[in-house]
This record gives sequence, structure tokens and C-alpha cells, in this order.
Amino acid sequence: MAVVKSPLSETARTVTGEALQGALVDLVDLSLYAKQAHWNLVGPRFKVVHEHLDEIVDLARQAQDDVAERAVAIGVNPDGRSRTVADRTEIQQLEPGDLADDKVVAAVADALFEIIGRFRGRIAATGEPDPVTQDLLIGITADLEKQHWMFRAQA
Amino acid sequence: MAVVKSPLSETARTVTGEALQGALVDLVDLSLYAKQAHWNLVGPRFKVVHEHLDEIVDLARQAQDDVAERAVAIGVNPDGRSRTVADRTEIQQLEPGDLADDKVVAAVADALFEIIGRFRGRIAATGEPDPVTQDLLIGITADLEKQHWMFRAQA
Amino acid sequence: MAVVKSPLSETARTVTGEALQGALVDLVDLSLYAKQAHWNLVGPRFKVVHEHLDEIVDLARQAQDDVAERAVAIGVNPDGRSRTVADRTEIQQLEPGDLADDKVVAAVADALFEIIGRFRGRIAATGEPDPVTQDLLIGITADLEKQHWMFRAQA
Amino acid sequence: MAVVKSPLSETARTVTGEALQGALVDLVDLSLYAKQAHWNLVGPRFKVVHEHLDEIVDLARQAQDDVAERAVAIGVNPDGRSRTVADRTEIQQLEPGDLADDKVVAAVADALFEIIGRFRGRIAATGEPDPVTQDLLIGITADLEKQHWMFRAQA
Amino acid sequence: MAVVKSPLSETARTVTGEALQGALVDLVDLSLYAKQAHWNLVGPRFKVVHEHLDEIVDLARQAQDDVAERAVAIGVNPDGRSRTVADRTEIQQLEPGDLADDKVVAAVADALFEIIGRFRGRIAATGEPDPVTQDLLIGITADLEKQHWMFRAQA
Amino acid sequence: MAVVKSPLSETARTVTGEALQGALVDLVDLSLYAKQAHWNLVGPRFKVVHEHLDEIVDLARQAQDDVAERAVAIGVNPDGRSRTVADRTEIQQLEPGDLADDKVVAAVADALFEIIGRFRGRIAATGEPDPVTQDLLIGITADLEKQHWMFRAQA
Amino acid sequence: MAVVKSPLSETARTVTGEALQGALVDLVDLSLYAKQAHWNLVGPRFKVVHEHLDEIVDLARQAQDDVAERAVAIGVNPDGRSRTVADRTEIQQLEPGDLADDKVVAAVADALFEIIGRFRGRIAATGEPDPVTQDLLIGITADLEKQHWMFRAQA
Amino acid sequence: MAVVKSPLSETARTVTGEALQGALVDLVDLSLYAKQAHWNLVGPRFKVVHEHLDEIVDLARQAQDDVAERAVAIGVNPDGRSRTVADRTEIQQLEPGDLADDKVVAAVADALFEIIGRFRGRIAATGEPDPVTQDLLIGITADLEKQHWMFRAQA
Amino acid sequence: MAVVKSPLSETARTVTGEALQGALVDLVDLSLYAKQAHWNLVGPRFKVVHEHLDEIVDLARQAQDDVAERAVAIGVNPDGRSRTVADRTEIQQLEPGDLADDKVVAAVADALFEIIGRFRGRIAATGEPDPVTQDLLIGITADLEKQHWMFRAQA
Amino acid sequence: MAVVKSPLSETARTVTGEALQGALVDLVDLSLYAKQAHWNLVGPRFKVVHEHLDEIVDLARQAQDDVAERAVAIGVNPDGRSRTVADRTEIQQLEPGDLADDKVVAAVADALFEIIGRFRGRIAATGEPDPVTQDLLIGITADLEKQHWMFRAQA
Amino acid sequence: MAVVKSPLSETARTVTGEALQGALVDLVDLSLYAKQAHWNLVGPRFKVVHEHLDEIVDLARQAQDDVAERAVAIGVNPDGRSRTVADRTEIQQLEPGDLADDKVVAAVADALFEIIGRFRGRIAATGEPDPVTQDLLIGITADLEKQHWMFRAQA
Amino acid sequence: MAVVKSPLSETARTVTGEALQGALVDLVDLSLYAKQAHWNLVGPRFKVVHEHLDEIVDLARQAQDDVAERAVAIGVNPDGRSRTVADRTEIQQLEPGDLADDKVVAAVADALFEIIGRFRGRIAATGEPDPVTQDLLIGITADLEKQHWMFRAQA
Repeated sequence: MAVVKSPLSETARTVTGEALQGALVDLVDLSLYAKQAHWNLVGPRFKVVHEHLDEIVDLARQAQDDVAERAVAIGVNPDGRSRTVADRTEIQQLEPGDLADDKVVAAVADALFEIIGRFRGRIAATGEPDPVTQDLLIGITADLEKQHWMFRAQA
Repeated sequence: MAVVKSPLSETARTVTGEALQGALVDLVDLSLYAKQAHWNLVGPRFKVVHEHLDEIVDLARQAQDDVAERAVAIGVNPDGRSRTVADRTEIQQLEPGDLADDKVVAAVADALFEIIGRFRGRIAATGEPDPVTQDLLIGITADLEKQHWMFRAQA
Repeated sequence: MAVVKSPLSETARTVTGEALQGALVDLVDLSLYAKQAHWNLVGPRFKVVHEHLDEIVDLARQAQDDVAERAVAIGVNPDGRSRTVADRTEIQQLEPGDLADDKVVAAVADALFEIIGRFRGRIAATGEPDPVTQDLLIGITADLEKQHWMFRAQA
Repeated sequence: MAVVKSPLSETARTVTGEALQGALVDLVDLSLYAKQAHWNLVGPRFKVVHEHLDEIVDLARQAQDDVAERAVAIGVNPDGRSRTVADRTEIQQLEPGDLADDKVVAAVADALFEIIGRFRGRIAATGEPDPVTQDLLIGITADLEKQHWMFRAQA
Repeated sequence: MAVVKSPLSETARTVTGEALQGALVDLVDLSLYAKQAHWNLVGPRFKVVHEHLDEIVDLARQAQDDVAERAVAIGVNPDGRSRTVADRTEIQQLEPGDLADDKVVAAVADALFEIIGRFRGRIAATGEPDPVTQDLLIGITADLEKQHWMFRAQA
Repeated sequence: MAVVKSPLSETARTVTGEALQGALVDLVDLSLYAKQAHWNLVGPRFKVVHEHLDEIVDLARQAQDDVAERAVAIGVNPDGRSRTVADRTEIQQLEPGDLADDKVVAAVADALFEIIGRFRGRIAATGEPDPVTQDLLIGITADLEKQHWMFRAQA
Repeated sequence: MAVVKSPLSETARTVTGEALQGALVDLVDLSLYAKQAHWNLVGPRFKVVHEHLDEIVDLARQAQDDVAERAVAIGVNPDGRSRTVADRTEIQQLEPGDLADDKVVAAVADALFEIIGRFRGRIAATGEPDPVTQDLLIGITADLEKQHWMFRAQA
Repeated sequence: MAVVKSPLSETARTVTGEALQGALVDLVDLSLYAKQAHWNLVGPRFKVVHEHLDEIVDLARQAQDDVAERAVAIGVNPDGRSRTVADRTEIQQLEPGDLADDKVVAAVADALFEIIGRFRGRIAATGEPDPVTQDLLIGITADLEKQHWMFRAQA
Repeated sequence: MAVVKSPLSETARTVTGEALQGALVDLVDLSLYAKQAHWNLVGPRFKVVHEHLDEIVDLARQAQDDVAERAVAIGVNPDGRSRTVADRTEIQQLEPGDLADDKVVAAVADALFEIIGRFRGRIAATGEPDPVTQDLLIGITADLEKQHWMFRAQA
Repeated sequence: MAVVKSPLSETARTVTGEALQGALVDLVDLSLYAKQAHWNLVGPRFKVVHEHLDEIVDLARQAQDDVAERAVAIGVNPDGRSRTVADRTEIQQLEPGDLADDKVVAAVADALFEIIGRFRGRIAATGEPDPVTQDLLIGITADLEKQHWMFRAQA
Repeated sequence: MAVVKSPLSETARTVTGEALQGALVDLVDLSLYAKQAHWNLVGPRFKVVHEHLDEIVDLARQAQDDVAERAVAIGVNPDGRSRTVADRTEIQQLEPGDLADDKVVAAVADALFEIIGRFRGRIAATGEPDPVTQDLLIGITADLEKQHWMFRAQA
Repeated sequence: MAVVKSPLSETARTVTGEALQGALVDLVDLSLYAKQAHWNLVGPRFKVVHEHLDEIVDLARQAQDDVAERAVAIGVNPDGRSRTVADRTEIQQLEPGDLADDKVVAAVADALFEIIGRFRGRIAATGEPDPVTQDLLIGITADLEKQHWMFRAQA
């Protein structure tokens, strides 16, 4: 347990901390996933999708910082180390090598849809113990759902 | 092998590609390592070190993009997925939980020193097969050595 | 129904979609209403009110984009065509020709008050089916109520 | 008739005022038309066309402000209310629901071509009564024709 | 009672107005408190803490404007006069004269913790009568808790 | 006659040069006139009109530079010295001392209307000898007429 | 007495320190006074005066920082705590509740005039003991007198 | 003939297209000419003329893009390839090797004067068939004549 | 006498007001003088001197605004009308027509030297009655003397 | 031979100068080639490729300036005139008229690959005689190879 | 004696010139001193003090330019050559090699205190002969005293 | 020897450290040399050369920071104190007093040529022991040679 004195009760902190740690793993791996696709992409839509993927990277990097700092602010140590992310991520991983643009678009849409499902669960779980964390998760979910729409629309 | 036609011979591409893939793993994990420390830091120097660590993150993120895109530009697919990074990284990992500022400063200095050693090997290896890649690695090494000095100076 | 796969259940999507479509009509017409006043304004307070009305236009344009893109993100097609807006708007329309500044100030305050009433209904309706949409509507309502105060204060 | 004293004769003002009011209806509806397509677009070219449509929105919004303020500057009240736009627009309206990207590209090119025809008529009509208004209409037509080329080139 | 027509019922306005007035006193005095420490600070960590305190000042000034304008937007007059702040503040006041850096860090962390407790009470109180105000208070609390973590981490 | 070789015939240059010199005197004196009102203004609308007058100053200064440089570009020396401006200006001068805001607004509207009349004469005169100069004068007239509308609307 | 070694003699420091502490109380309370008026303002000139008051707030906040840091630079601890300000301020306080715009304009002009009188006394007092402080006070007085003119001109 | 549907009649398009193609050759070669002088310049006025020549380059590059895109917008394919420019340019070419500053200044002034003559012919030719193109050519001519004056004035 | 209540005694205001009015005439005419030279300049140093003269224009315009607003702030109406400037200016006027660069450089240096002499007199005159005005005049004189050096150095 | 005294020996200068002159011809023609494609492009990928081509133009223009100024810095006159470029370019020229997007993408990739081959030869040739020039050529090659990858990836 | 005609009498110029030359030596050496410490610093406060020292460098560089240009503006040649600075500086020099952070902080505070003493003497000396120079020296002293406080506070 | 652990061997560090220390002395004195000329310059080309010299100052200041920080990064303490610079500089010093522009231009070109010779020696010396340092020195030499060309071209 972190040195920071929590504004939450023990129970509320545990529930909220788990939601945030789960979100952190999703977001760190989403940023690595989107970069992998950004680099290995091929196909006629290369330029557009290549740049669009960096919007996902930016979103995921900003959001991972927000959830990790929210965790420590409520007295829970976030864990975003490579081993932790690799072992706990639930995102369906990309194959190595060249990645065709149409497949990447569909795969990103699917990955986002799965992540959104987990975020909606975290929103439901944190409303009572910590509305401040819930509000953060709502904001990230809004961004993820906007990107999900945009990838789905071009799939 | 990537779809991109390489400006290098088969041999030169192999040697250069290995140097770049090794650099990529170092840099992705360095960015995750520095973020982990950024979030879990405690101690009287918290504010300064917390912000200094984000300079490392920025350096590592910019450089990982440069080496990965250099790899694909010479016809080699980079692999920066979480599993690959976790399995291949040679950086001494941080413990979970609160991290004291003085220990973080020393650990970052040590980690940078090890990474610099590997980069100097890559500079030596790529000079003949691909001076364009060598020049990129020289530039990144200059930045890493500057940060190494600054962390060591306050250790 | 839009091509985008919804993160909401069928029922939740219907309720939320109606709230967003209603908000869209309000906001598109508010932007046209404020521009009409912006152009045809006369009176000693012309310069101040002329510029203040463009703050309403900016607010309404940003918000209409947000609600329309939120609708499609949950799998509902927004309709912001001129015919739809003209037929469904509930805003009390302005007369053609010159518009005196004091009357415009009072009319804008009244129009905003009516719109706010409808937005508060939408906030109540969406809290259960989609807290992400509710949070967006709360943010827009905050902006509308701030502008309502400022127009009312000078009425 | 607006409170502003006109620098034009009665006849010149009438002719010029009609040209500007017609341009206003075209431009307000063009902005709503492009937003409707921006929101409901689907297909492999989604991202590019989605963003390109916002260039049309920006062009149409800036130009509608310029023509409306030009009208009042010559002593004619512009009318850009939703009902007026819906009743007087000559733009072929979009269907509700999802809109395929290739159809949108063709439809926008056609709509722009029709609008350009009407603007060329307004340029011809205003040269004698008011060269200042004509110069404004020439500038807007140049922008519309540039966008027409770009949509036609990808149709 | 302010001239502005409230979007809230009489009861809801009273409850919400008290929460906002309490928040205003906390935030105005927090800004004066942080400035007092900013000016009279001494010790080896002077430069870092001196600048960090201005982040608290900025946060408190922005937030006090938001809560005061929210109060008047719901028809309640905010009171941020020096006498009111001095009489009603519950923040443990600083001593005059030089202030050692380590004591300031601990004192700010404690003061923020107390303020956060009061804000969490206001979040609970306003959820039902006015979710728009609640959302504003949640946002300010998130910022206060982030600063609390950062001061506590270096205490 | 200036050292610059003119792209115009002798006759065309003479006609165009006279139009530009007349415009220069109007614009230099307009900038001094607006500054005099900017400084000596009193009345309840002080702040708004004070700032609005600086928009006139900016317009007049930019335009005077454009017409003077256009003159020399066609081989005619512009004369914007204080004595020349004072002797040739046709603008109705302001009284010394305090100037009431409502009188200033009316006076600026009247002054602009007179200047616009002279500019429309210059547009007519230069169309045949130099369409490049005519285009410049049309652009300035558009700006003057926009300001005329805004001052008249609040008179 | 502050830890900082003073560049002034004991006597000079005492005189200068009193002038700066008096200025600090004036400026902190002026910022609170102007914010109170900014929030509770009503009347037809609301928008203009509301924004103008924030110029006073900005001026007072910047100047209070300058005088407080000047005090500590000469070895005198500034005191800007809420209790100190409330007890020592000589500014005529505003009533709670709605404040009519014309009364606010007159009240601000009067308050500034009183403050200016005290600043002119401080300029006279510090010229001999510390010309560096005197120069700072002259600069602030110039800004206060400019604002005094602008409020008086519209009163 | 380009794929783009022209807003002009066949005859109007031919005349206008020839004017634009001629302008394109002038402007592409002017940019290469000015760069050649920019690089090979010597003499006491080196720094000033070196930088001034880049203003010509910027003007010529922006204008060549505008005329080429105007050509395709009216359904005519522009040709700006190196062979076409070298074969059709009418600009008096520079000698290879060092270029003395005074000779460059005179040569640029002469080259601009010749180009201006051709642009004035194109203005005359396009007024009837396409006033939109004419307006573009007028704008470019104004810029060329301003630069001509400035080079001539220092020759 | 202006509506603004002066912070100065009657005598102090008269002396200070005369200094400021004299400064205003110098500065308005300096801006017109420098623009006249800016436009009619010829010679090998054209580009440098042409641009340098605009630094004088900027300095003079900023300073004239400062002295005029200072005058009204102490209750004295400034007079910057064209007739007043033309009648009272003591600056040696430029001849009409082309102006050789070396003569302009010398003339500007001389004109600045004369103006500086008058400003030094005004500094001496205002120190006792109004140190705030004196400080403003000192700042303007510093700028004038810097420009005087730069023109003299190249004369 | 240029007036500038070379830091290189006669032999080193000759070898290096030839490499730079060859690079200059490649880069000037590459910029004209990419603009020709930018203007005459048609096909479903128009918008993306149209904008991507301008990145090539920017790269080629910046690099041509760098190599030309590097040439003169070592005492060799660069030659970038239209005739020289047209006669010496080795780039496979584009056909006149409309250019299909897929063909353009492939052609640009091929042209870049050929240019890169020549740049790699220049890197090899200049390493010994002038490492400063070599470093410049390495930097440009890195940029060309990055663009080659991006065009090839979408071919 | 410089070519510039002095606005001061011979005596005034001599006194003022000596003050400015003394200030110049102090400021040039202060900038070198602070850079030496910036580079060779070690210790736990490295990052903060390293960056703080660059604020001293910036202050000293800006101020040295101001005093040197002030000297030449009054007709006195400044001398800031390395030999002059090394021979005339009165600043206690730093040792070569690593410099511990706490010693640097104390040493900078001491050096600034000594420099401030000399600047206060120059302020006293120049008030009568040249109030413009005195005002410049007062401004620099204010900045030096602010930095002195900040270094002393953390010593 | 500095506290920083060197990535180089003892021998490599010694050779590289000497090259960097030599570069540091050159660059610090170049910045002082260029400022001395910047201040004492006279002659018809004053404005251009005065400003051009500040480009040298900027180059020299940025480069001195880079070489000094590179030295400490490899474990060698840089020495940039005034005494060291004065004693070790090999730059031919300027005379005190006014400096004619043509002589300054020639002197700067000569000084740069000498410095470049020393930098080319350092590039040769560091390639084997430390390619990272060599790359830095190549970059600085490129900038110095560009400036050498520009000063030589106008000499």
C-alpha cells in the first residue's frame, strides 16, 4: 500500500484500485498494440490508418497516466511494468510481420470493443465507492467509444 | 520480411535489423520503466525526479518510434509487442510498490549505463553495413548519455 | 440503425438516442438563431451583444458535433438536416428584420432557459441507460446555464 | 429594410441584396449538409472523407458570415433562420441513416457544382450595381471551385 | 437571492448554494494560504516547493471562479470578500515569518486532506439536487486529490 | 515622379496616382481621428467604444500602408506628411476635450460614410486604368463599409 | 525578520518594508473586491464590466506577487493571510448580493482613487531609502491610474 | 483534358487555361531563378539581398500552386515539369558562378518587369471568360509589382 | 479639463500635462515622418532602412498611445489631431518625392537628437510634480536614444 | 570557382562538389515532379496522396537549399537553373495530363528508390574528403528512405 | 570615444560610462560563472540548481546587452572582451572540477550580494548625470536582488 | 575527473576531453568576440552586420553549452571561466573602440576560418575514440562553415 493517505475507506480503495489497475493494463497494452500496427502496416490505406493509429496511441498514453496517477492518489500502487502488462493483458495480440490495412482496421475495432466492455464494468463498479474515479473512467470510455465508432465505420 | 524493398544488401539488412530490434526493446522497456518510477515515487525529491522521469519517457518514446520506422524503412519488421518486450528486455526491473527517490535516481543511472553499453555496440556494428542507421543510433546515444550524466550527478 | 456495433443494449440505445437527437435539434437551431440575431442586431449595446452571440454560436456548434458523434458512437444515426431542424425545433423563432439589442438579450435568455429545461430532462433520462452520454449532457448543460446567467444578468 | 444607411442606390441594393440572400441560403444549408454527411458516413474512406467534409463546413460557415454581414452593410437584412433555409434551399437533400463514402463524395461534388452555377450568376448580376459585393462572391466561388475539383477528382 | 432565474427548485438551490459557498471559502483561502507559503518559504527545497505552491494557487483561483460562477448561475450570490473568508475559513492558518520547506510540505498536504474531506461531503450532498454542480465538484476534487498525493509523497 | 519604372502608361498612372493619394490622406487622417476619440472618450459605453475605435485605427494604418506602397509601385510618390494631411483632409474634425460616447459613435459613422463615398468614386475611376489598384480599393472599401454598419447599428 | 540578508540598512528596510506590507494588503483585497463584483454584477453593462473587472484582478494579482517578493528580497516577511487582509484593509467593502453595474463602476473608481493616494505616499516614502522599491511602486501606480481613468470615464 | 467537370464553357476554358499555364511557367522558373541567385550571391549587400530573394521564392512558390490548382479546377491540366519549364520560360537566364549583388538586384527588377507585363496581358485576357481566374491573377500581379518596386528602388 | 479626477494638484497637473502634450506632438509627427521616409526611400540600402524605419513607426505609435493615455489619466485632454500636429511640430520636415537612403539615415538621426533634447527637458520638468509620468518619459527616452545610436552609427 | 575560401583541399572540394551538385539536380527535380503529381492527381485516394506529395515537396525543397548552401560553403557554385535541371535529371519523368493515384504512388516509390541509390553512392564518396558533407547527405537519405517506405507500403 | 553624438555633457558621460563599463564586466563574468557552475554541478539538488543557474545566465546575458548598448548610446565604447573581463572582474572565482550543489548555492548568493553592492553604488552615481541610465540600473538591480533572495533562501 | 562514470575508456576519454575543452574555449571567446563587435560597430552596413553578429552569438552560445555538457557526460570537467578563456583563446582579438563594418566582416570571416581549422582537427581526432562526440563536432562545424561562407561572401 502506497505512502499516500487515502481519502477512501479500505473497502472503497480496494475496489477502486482494482478497477484502475485493470484499466492501466488495458491502456498500456493498447498503446503498444497500436504502435506495433502503426509500424508494420501495409496496404492502399497505409497513410490514413498509420496516422489514425497514432491518435489511439496518444489517447492510450494520456489515459494510462491519468489512471495510474489516480491510483496512487487513492493510496494504491499502480503496476505498469512490461512483465505485468504482458502477463495480464486480455487484448488479442497481433501477429509479427506485415499487417494488412483492412485487417488492422477490423482488429483495432474489435480490440476497442472488448476494452470498452471492461471499462463499462469498471464504471459500474466504482460509482458507489469513488465517484471521482468513476468520472475519470467515463471520460476515457467516451474517447474509446468515439474511436471505436471511427474504426468500425471504415471496417 | 517486410513488403518494403530494401536499399541494403541482404547481409547488411540482417545486421542492421538486429541492432534496431535490440534498440527497440531497450527503448520500449525504458519508457515503461520510467513511467513505473514516475508513478510510484516517494521521498523529499519527489517533484523534481517525478518530472525528470518524464523527460526519459519522452526521449524513449521518440527514439523507439525512430528506430522502429528505420527498421521497416530497410525492410525489417520491428516487434514492439508487450510479450516480446517483457521476454527480451535486459533492463533490471523495478520492484512493485513505493519507490524511494534516491534509489530511483541510482537505478535509472545504472539502467541507462547498461543501455548505453548496448547502444555503443550497435553503433560499432552498423557503421559499415548502414551509416544511415548508425547516425540515428549515435544521436540517440548522445541523448541517453546526457541523461545518464544528469541522473549520475544527483545520485 | 447505424453500421456501428453499439456498446449499449437495444433499450438503452433507444432511450439515449432519442435524448441525443433532441439535443441535436436544439443545438443546431440555437446556432442558427444566434447567428440570425448576430447579423440583424441594432441598438446602443450592439458591439457587446454582437460578439457575445458568437460565443453562443461557438458553444452550440461544438456541442452539436459532440452529441451527433455520441449518437453514432452508440449506433444511432443523428439527423441534423435543415428540414428536420426546421420541423422539430421547439425554440421560439425570431422575427425577420432589425432586432433591438434589449429584446435580443431577453429572448436569448428565455430561449436558453427553455433549452436547459429540456437538457435537464435528458440528463435524468440517460443516467441509468448510459452514464457516458449523461456526462456529456451535464457538461453541455453547465455551459448553457453559464450563458443563461450572463444573458439574464444583463436583461 | 435595415437601419443601416446604404452606400448603394435603391435599385443596386435590391439586386445585390437578392444575390446575397440567395448565397446565404446556399451556404447555411451547405454547412448543415456537410455536417450530416460528416456524422453518418461509412466505408473504407471514412477517415479522409470525414475530415474533408469539415473543410466544407468551415468554408461554408466563414462564407455565410461574410455574405450575411455584407448584406446588412448595404442595408439589407439577411435571413438565415432554419425555416427560411429549409424552405428555400435548392440543394438536393441527403437521405437519413448511414451514407456510403463513395456516394457522399459524388453527391458533394454534384451539390457544389450546382451551387457554383448559382454563384456565377450572382457574380454576373452584382458587377455593375456593387463591385464590392461581386469581389466577395468571386472569392467564395474560387474556394467552392477548388473544393469541387478535389471532390470530383476522387469521385 | 440573485436576479438570475434558477433552473433548480427552491430546495435544491438552497442545498447546492450552501455547498458552493463552502467550497468558495475553502478555495479563496487556499489560494491566499499557498501564496503566503510561496513568499515566506526557506530551506534547501525552496525552488521546487516555491514553484509547486503556485500550481496550488492556479488550481485554487480557477476553481474559485468556477464555483462562484456556478452559484450565480443557479441563482445564489457567492460571497468571497476578505472578511467572509477570514471569518468562515476552516483551514489551519500559517504562522507569520519564515516557513521551513519541510513543514510547509506537510502543512499543505494536511490542509488539502481536510479540504478534500469537505469536498467529498459536498459531492454527496449535491448529487440528487443538482448533478451539474456535482460534476463540477468532482472535477475539482480530482485535482485536489492529485495535489494531495504529490505533497504527501514528498512529505 | 518616383524612380520606379511604372507598369502603367503615363495617363493611367496619373489617374491612379491621384486616387491613391486621395485615399492616403483619408486613411492617415482617419487613424488620427480615431485615436483622438479613443483617448478623449467619456460616457457609459466608454470601454466598448474605446476598444472599437482601435479596430478603426488598425484598419486605417494597414490600409494607408497598402495604398502608399501601391502608389510608389506604380511610380507615384505618396505624400503622408502631417502638413499635407492637415491641409487636404476632408474629414469633419473633432472638437478638443472630452467627447461623449454617443456623439463619437454617430460622428465616426458619418465620417466613414463620407470616406466610403470618396472610395467608391476611386473604384470607379481606376477600373479601366489599373484593375490591380481597383482591387485594392475594393478590399479597403469592404472593410470600411463593414465598420460603417457596425457604428451605424449602435448609433 | 526573514533569513535573507538585506541589501538595505536597518532603517531603510523598516521604512520600505512598511510601504510594501501596506501595498500588499491593498492589492490582495483589491483582487478579492474585484472578483466579488465580477461574480455578483447585474445590469445592462454586465458583459463589459464583468470582463473589465478581471483586468483589475489580473493587475492586482501580478502586483501583489511583485510587492511581496520585493519585501522578502529586502529581508522583510510579507503577510498576505486572509485574517491580516480582512483586519487591515482600508478599502470600502462591497455589500453582499446583487450589485448594479453603474454602482460598481463608481465604487471601483472610488476605491482605486483611495488606493492611488496611499501608493503615492509610499512612492514618496521609499525614494530615499530604496529607489528599487520606489521604481516598482511607480510602475504599479501607473497601472492603477490608467484603470482609474477608465472606470471614471464610464462612471 | 482533366477529369474535372468545368464550370466554364469550352472557349472560356481554353483561353483561361492558356493564361494559367503561361503564368505557371513564369512562376516556377522565377522560383528557380531566385534560388540560383540566393545561393551564388556575393558582394557587400549579400545578407540583405540573400534574404530578400527568399521572399521572391516564397511568393513564386505560393503563386505557382494557386495558378496550377486554379487550372485543374477549371478542367485544364497544368504542366510544371522541369523540361516544360526549361523549354518555355521567357525569363532571361542567369550566368553560372558567382553573381555580384548589384547585378542581381538589377536583373531581378528587370525579370519581374517582364513577368508583370505578361501577367497584365493575362488579366486583360481572362476578365470576360473567367473573372475568378482574373481576380487570382490580379492578386499575384499586386505582389509582383510590390517586389518590383522594392528591387528597383535599391537598384 | 477632462472628466477624470486627477491624482495630482492643479499645478502639478498643468506642468505634467504640458510635457505630455509636447511629447504627443513629437511622437505623432515622428510616426508620420518615418512612414513618409519608409514609402519614398531609394538607394542601395533601401531594404534595410525601409524596415528599420518601421521600428521607429512602431516605437512612436506605442509611445504616443502611452503619453496620451497618461495625460487623460491625470485629468488632461491630449490633442493629437492632424491640424494640431501640423501646426505645433518642431521636427524638420522631409521634402516630397524620392528620398535617398543616406540622406534619410542622417535626417532621422538628427530628428531623433532634437526630439531627445526635448524629452530630456520634460524628464527634468516632471520629476517633482509627477514621478509616474517622469518614469514613462524616461522609458521612451531610452528607446529613442537607442534608435538614435543605431541611425547615427550607420550615418 | 566561388569567391568563398574553402576549408577543403582542391581534390576534396572537387569530389564533394560533384556529389552536392548531383544531389541538387535530384532534389530540385524531385520537388517539381512531386508538384506535377500533386496537381494532376485523380482517383479514390486523391486527398491522401495529394497531401502526402506535399511532404515530398517540403523535404526536397529544404534539402535542395541545404545541399546548395553546403556547396557554396566549401567553395563550389551550385547550379539549380531550370535548363540545368531539365538536362541533367535522371528521374523518370511523368506523363502530362491526369495521373491515376495508384500509378503515382508506385512511380514515386520507384523514383525515390533510384534517388536513394545515387545518394548512397554520394555518402560513400564524401566520407573521406568531407565528413561534414557526408553527415548532411546521411540525414537527407534517412528522410528519403522513410518516405520511400511509406510510398512503397501503400503501393 | 564612440562615433555617436552624446545626449549628455562630457562630465555626465564620463561618470555614466564608468558605471556602465563596471556593470558590463560584472554581468559578463556572472554569465560565465553561472555557466561554469551549471556544467560542473553535482549533488542531490543537481537538477533544480542546474536549471536555476540558467535563469542567472539569461538575466546576465540580457542585462549585459542592455548596459553595453546603453553605453554606446551615450557615446562610450563598451569593452566586453575576454581579456578585459578576466582582468577586471571582482567576482570570487570558482574552483575547477566538480562543484557540490550546496556550495554552489551559497557561492552564487554571495557573488550576487557583492554585485548588488556595486550596482547600488552605480545607481547612486548616475541619478544626477543620467536618470535614463539610472532607471536601467535600477531594473537590473531588482532582478539581481530577486535572484539573491531565492539563492539565499535555499542556502 | 568528474563524478560521472564514463562510457569511454581512459584513453578515449582523455583525447575526446581535450578536443571538447579546446572547442569550449573557441566557442566562449567567439561569443564574446561577436558581442564586442555587435556593440561597437559603425558604418553604412551597421544594421545588417549588427544583427548578423547576433546569429554568431546564438550559434556560439548553443554550441558551447553542447560541448561542455558533452564533456561532463563523458566524465571530463569543462572549464569555461573568464580567466581560462582569456589565457587559452587563440582568436585574434579585436581592438577597443569603434569598429568599422567592413573590417569587422573581414575579421569575423578570418576568425571563423581559423576556428574551423581547429574543429576539423578535432573531428579527425575523435572519430575513433568517440563517434558520438565526433558527430556533435561535425554538426557545429557545419554551422560555422555556413556562417564563414556568409561573412566571406560579403567581405
